[in-house]
Amino acid sequence: MKDAVLAFLKEAQGYGSGEEISQKLGVTRAAIWKAIKKLQAEGYEIESSTKKGYKLIKVPNIITPNEVGEHLNTDYFGKSIYYKAEMDSTNNKAKELAREGAKEGTLVIADCQTGGKGRLGRSWESPAGTGIWMSLILRPKILPQYASQLTLIAGLGMCEAIQEVTGLEAKIKWPNDIVVNGRKVCGILTEMHAEMEGINYIVVGIGVNVNMQIFPDDLPHATSLLLEGGQEYSRKAIIQSFLKKFEVDYNQYKQIPSLESMRARYEKQCITLHRKIKLLKKVEGSVTEVVAQAIGITNEGALKVRYEDQTMEEVVSGEVSVRGLYDYV
Amino acid sequence: MKDAVLAFLKEAQGYGSGEEISQKLGVTRAAIWKAIKKLQAEGYEIESSTKKGYKLIKVPNIITPNEVGEHLNTDYFGKSIYYKAEMDSTNNKAKELAREGAKEGTLVIADCQTGGKGRLGRSWESPAGTGIWMSLILRPKILPQYASQLTLIAGLGMCEAIQEVTGLEAKIKWPNDIVVNGRKVCGILTEMHAEMEGINYIVVGIGVNVNMQIFPDDLPHATSLLLEGGQEYSRKAIIQSFLKKFEVDYNQYKQIPSLESMRARYEKQCITLHRKIKLLKKVEGSVTEVVAQAIGITNEGALKVRYEDQTMEEVVSGEVSVRGLYDYV
Repeated sequence: MKDAVLAFLKEAQGYGSGEEISQKLGVTRAAIWKAIKKLQAEGYEIESSTKKGYKLIKVPNIITPNEVGEHLNTDYFGKSIYYKAEMDSTNNKAKELAREGAKEGTLVIADCQTGGKGRLGRSWESPAGTGIWMSLILRPKILPQYASQLTLIAGLGMCEAIQEVTGLEAKIKWPNDIVVNGRKVCGILTEMHAEMEGINYIVVGIGVNVNMQIFPDDLPHATSLLLEGGQEYSRKAIIQSFLKKFEVDYNQYKQIPSLESMRARYEKQCITLHRKIKLLKKVEGSVTEVVAQAIGITNEGALKVRYEDQTMEEVVSGEVSVRGLYDYV
Repeated sequence: MKDAVLAFLKEAQGYGSGEEISQKLGVTRAAIWKAIKKLQAEGYEIESSTKKGYKLIKVPNIITPNEVGEHLNTDYFGKSIYYKAEMDSTNNKAKELAREGAKEGTLVIADCQTGGKGRLGRSWESPAGTGIWMSLILRPKILPQYASQLTLIAGLGMCEAIQEVTGLEAKIKWPNDIVVNGRKVCGILTEMHAEMEGINYIVVGIGVNVNMQIFPDDLPHATSLLLEGGQEYSRKAIIQSFLKKFEVDYNQYKQIPSLESMRARYEKQCITLHRKIKLLKKVEGSVTEVVAQAIGITNEGALKVRYEDQTMEEVVSGEVSVRGLYDYV
């Protein structure tokens, strides 16, 4: 009902009288009035005039299925959306839906997470109204050993989506953080359930700091698109652009589970390359720091580095983490 | 209570009077009588005489925590056992316990599974009283791309355990089926939940056909240890031997996630090697058959093969499956 009234108002592009709407949708005017109230509660600005009826003044910056699904030009990414204003964590919900058999491409979105998680069990700030907290369910028919590339491809899609929508110079910090002006705006947490011979499901969880005005002091490396660009951005536009780009790359990857065909694009966006970095190597509980030059990405998503003694190595995420010589990036 | 009475009777090695037991355990003779009834219902043969008291005549071939845990000389494998006579599937239960935080080494055992599963979603016959249906929870601190070796190591442990307990010539059909006289007695289904940078948990599910007298006609490749050896075997002894052997290898593997130090032992037990085999390659939905010579195993658990035109390849489980030229093995 609410959805039908919204669709009517969006199409009308002016006033629609209660009588008109009521005839078109075949419901009472009281039911329409109720739907209008609900839409206003979600943030839609709707003017009502006794004479002229209702008019949609402004669509809010919200990411409900109605908004994200509107004119979404993908084949299957985001064609089924599970949305709740508040969730524990979208990855948890997506895993639950995946266990219950949810289709590939199902998207879980929350406006706010109460227990958002980053990699390695770290907590992730996910306040209401300002960020994108979403998880996408995938079921590629590949072996689990090829899954780690996928999270780099998701990072590439989000980096390009942020560039397209905001015009900001978003870059990828290998393997898959997105940074703007040296600070993190996006993190990706990919989880999978697999047998040795195949993947049951993968959940790609993505958090983007879009319109936050401020961050806690203990997150010095975090920023938002608003803080860097000086304006508010449409969360819906970023989600839609990401889904479209990632779907194209993912279809390619399902054919051949390798970065090869996207590697040039990834390397172009990757700020870690062609400079000196610190590698933090975890060896038996303690962390060793080594300075190296990052020189490229392999088809498997590993980082090729050259040490100061000119020896080369390919390092994989999880065995090392990477810092800039003087800062986070 | 029941456990204490059983422990007393096992230690007594002769008759224990109701009064003796009652004094030792500090409970009434009526409570002891109840415990005896419960033990008898589980299959323990206990003689009771008005004069002499109770005597344990025969321990049944059961795999309750009491029996499997008795004199189990492992450090942490099987030190916590979750047992139910009937379960949907021990892998499902183990995954549930793992999600709730169960410790590494926790073992789930069922006497009978109502929804037992083999690899690739195939069903697995798991009747009561005759087989070993169990799942072990592991939490190795390794990257998910190194997990596939683990299932070969589990297969090696079970192959050696069956040899030790039964004296039968059990062999490994790569990657991890155990066969006796060319027919399958054991299958392993390993499932994992991982992030890209680390494994959350692995569940190693193992089914062993121990004392079945007969198999359905549609399982021509299946057999039991009893059918091949002509006698009944102790399920408890096989489980204990396996846990001990697998724990030693697993500790090694956690240090260096490679087959290297166990490869010679694996190759010795692997019946797939040094003979002509058929490789069934799955390519875009259809299956191609190629004849090849199996010549070795890599440290990653792949099978090294030489084709008839002398080219070599390393194939991984999931991309191919293997058959003998004229039969299953």
